[in-house]
Amino acid sequence: MVADSDYEYDFLVIGAGSGGVRAARMAAAAGAKVAIAEDRYLGGTCVNVGCVPKKLYAYAAHFHDSFDDAAGFGWQLSEPATFDWATLRDNKTSEIKRLNGIYQRMLESTGVKLLNARAELVDSHTIALKDTNGVSYARARKILVATGGWPWVPDFPGKEHALDSNQVFDLDTFPKRFLVLGGGYIAVEFASIFNGLGSETHLIYRGDLFLKQFDHEVREFTRTEMEKKGVNLHFNANIERIETAGTSYNVHLTTGEVLEVDAVLAATGRKANIQGLGLEALGIQLDGDGKIPVNERYETLVPSVLALGDLTAGPELTPVAIAEAMQLVDYHFKDATPPPLDYTTVPTAVFCQPNIGTVGLSEEGARQKLAKIRVYSTQFRAMKHTLSGSQERTLMKLVVDDATDVVVGAHMVGEDAGEIIQGIAIAVRAGLTKQDFDLTVGIHPTGAEEFVTLRTLTRH
Amino acid sequence: MVADSDYEYDFLVIGAGSGGVRAARMAAAAGAKVAIAEDRYLGGTCVNVGCVPKKLYAYAAHFHDSFDDAAGFGWQLSEPATFDWATLRDNKTSEIKRLNGIYQRMLESTGVKLLNARAELVDSHTIALKDTNGVSYARARKILVATGGWPWVPDFPGKEHALDSNQVFDLDTFPKRFLVLGGGYIAVEFASIFNGLGSETHLIYRGDLFLKQFDHEVREFTRTEMEKKGVNLHFNANIERIETAGTSYNVHLTTGEVLEVDAVLAATGRKANIQGLGLEALGIQLDGDGKIPVNERYETLVPSVLALGDLTAGPELTPVAIAEAMQLVDYHFKDATPPPLDYTTVPTAVFCQPNIGTVGLSEEGARQKLAKIRVYSTQFRAMKHTLSGSQERTLMKLVVDDATDVVVGAHMVGEDAGEIIQGIAIAVRAGLTKQDFDLTVGIHPTGAEEFVTLRTLTRH
Repeated sequence: MVADSDYEYDFLVIGAGSGGVRAARMAAAAGAKVAIAEDRYLGGTCVNVGCVPKKLYAYAAHFHDSFDDAAGFGWQLSEPATFDWATLRDNKTSEIKRLNGIYQRMLESTGVKLLNARAELVDSHTIALKDTNGVSYARARKILVATGGWPWVPDFPGKEHALDSNQVFDLDTFPKRFLVLGGGYIAVEFASIFNGLGSETHLIYRGDLFLKQFDHEVREFTRTEMEKKGVNLHFNANIERIETAGTSYNVHLTTGEVLEVDAVLAATGRKANIQGLGLEALGIQLDGDGKIPVNERYETLVPSVLALGDLTAGPELTPVAIAEAMQLVDYHFKDATPPPLDYTTVPTAVFCQPNIGTVGLSEEGARQKLAKIRVYSTQFRAMKHTLSGSQERTLMKLVVDDATDVVVGAHMVGEDAGEIIQGIAIAVRAGLTKQDFDLTVGIHPTGAEEFVTLRTLTRH
Repeated sequence: MVADSDYEYDFLVIGAGSGGVRAARMAAAAGAKVAIAEDRYLGGTCVNVGCVPKKLYAYAAHFHDSFDDAAGFGWQLSEPATFDWATLRDNKTSEIKRLNGIYQRMLESTGVKLLNARAELVDSHTIALKDTNGVSYARARKILVATGGWPWVPDFPGKEHALDSNQVFDLDTFPKRFLVLGGGYIAVEFASIFNGLGSETHLIYRGDLFLKQFDHEVREFTRTEMEKKGVNLHFNANIERIETAGTSYNVHLTTGEVLEVDAVLAATGRKANIQGLGLEALGIQLDGDGKIPVNERYETLVPSVLALGDLTAGPELTPVAIAEAMQLVDYHFKDATPPPLDYTTVPTAVFCQPNIGTVGLSEEGARQKLAKIRVYSTQFRAMKHTLSGSQERTLMKLVVDDATDVVVGAHMVGEDAGEIIQGIAIAVRAGLTKQDFDLTVGIHPTGAEEFVTLRTLTRH
């Protein structure tokens, strides 16, 4: 048995992303002596190359629609608005620097020691810290690995010409023609972003239809809406090779088609960011899904080494990592047993145009799991678009367990879907019934009121 | 006892507004022989001079902010956008005509006979129908009075120069200087609308602070935000008289101030629209609040004469009238007993800039009703405004019963507050607890996620 005094720290966190920072701060607030090691930027993927800059770019892209919409409401522009990429990019960078500073002050103010170094696990309680001055060592009672994910790009000739999602935010020049490879969140969001900012945009995906973890009707509807907005969707296609052509690229597809574009984004997935961490030497290995196995206390095979967030099973989302961090601190630094996290009702949004918001089971998932379901689905043109002339439509649907009347899934494609689904998610997580929805009075006129006025069964 | 065959109709509805139309359609769908009398426009206040045109104008006003916000995101306008009132007004009128047509077809398709005439109650089962051809009579087993409300303006010299909320939508020319008298929904919404469209805008209200039925912190916050946007708020003031000055008006306030403006809106309340209906002759009188008393089956003192909506107690809101209509049809045409309507958890929005969304008890109301409460309140700048440069801020708060942990009130001032509160209202009506909110994972980055991440108690 080793005495606690043998450790410099009670808790040493590797990786200052959403999960790591929250765990460090909460543990420090609970009285633990805490350090956090980070060799890159504070705030991790979310703040630096994820949620935050992505959402800012999505806002920027959406103004394009606003300018178009305004005419029907009496607003006239003497000339079409023009877009300057450098302004957006550099304002985004300034904002992220501001957020990095906020993270630093938050950590300092809770007494977390910030170690600006690359960390490597040496044994179950020791990490090596490498920086330009050399190597030092630190020992801690518990170590949290919270290094998140890193973009992964498959091999193909000319792969070196493709950007990954870390790089695409900081392009020197705006791509007049933009191609994205992939069918997940990031691919779909960036297709909408560059399309909205004015690029000729192509999305290439090897499957039949993008966003395969989502409700099928949502996926089909999103395809239709994105195509109406001008995104060129190429399904059942892949990149065979990329060749340079002056300052642009010829992208050869497996379908035989060749697309000439100015930038290529490979949004082809993310993998656990564990290279050089030394996990293997401790016997900690990734499972078949490329994740670090942990128990409900977030302990790996080595009980003093913990892991959470994108490294472990569960949705790769900032709020999930944060929720896990708070649970982890409850278990390990507050001797508390928090209520379990329910991963099946984690809501999420895709900030494509229009947005997708979703919580709970897809129609297909519900059909598989439940004896009988009821589906209430509606498609309509939002009130704003009666005057804007936009042909954008909105989809809203509820999936209900027929036996219990419980709403097991809620889905939306339309403006502010992410904002609207958040409140619905409280109801779905708590297991409220369709009758609870029906008994709630609508707020008129809103889009959201459709969720409490869906009375006509669409299908079983 | 009179046989049913003595009646031409099972159900005769006076007033084709939100409540009347819904009751007529549902009763007809349940097999009743139904007629609806209307001498004005189909769809009532909501469609013609309320929710719908108001929301369209609120959208129009909001583009002003969008243009300003866009610069920080890289969008450049060669010249400021200009606004043409006639385009907005006439596009609004076309859209309302389209909706009137939809209402007509909805009624016809469910077999409701439309009587284009002014109706007056003759006895408990008979109405007189007056049109340009003269008078005819119709008898019905049950009669529903659903004539809603009508704007009311207090007396002051020059009152004839003030518009009411029915008239303001169709101004011939755009008022460069606009004044609104009142402190309710309509006053606040129109102040934001004309301010956003570019008028120099004044709001005059006799009380200390507008929106007196709302949470006090919400009211104070809204005052600050509206003033930041340039609305001139004059509280503890009233109109003494209005004098003409060429094509404009000099509005003399009780404070001694004189404001020269191009249009004056008196948004000083609405009263039951019952003149000439013949209710008095049947012994049906308004109560002290100016409402028609009804029992839970919506029966007046005369059991065959029913009333609902703005004529009766409860919030004067379209979705409330619709909910009441569906209950009424359950009772009278389906022999069913619907679950009671809970008026204390009816959510609502004010479409000022920024929007207000609210459900349940205000902090003050909760303090009065409950032994001990917890208040969680946060104010922040929305992510969009980190780049837009706008100083607009958002307020979100939850009011919790300390004894039960039930969330008894949720309030928001900020973009899309009406959309966001709708889902929250499902949770509040169902009596979910603060823990239910806390256990719901956030959707990042949204504004709405603050409602599930409020962890720090603001005050008891």
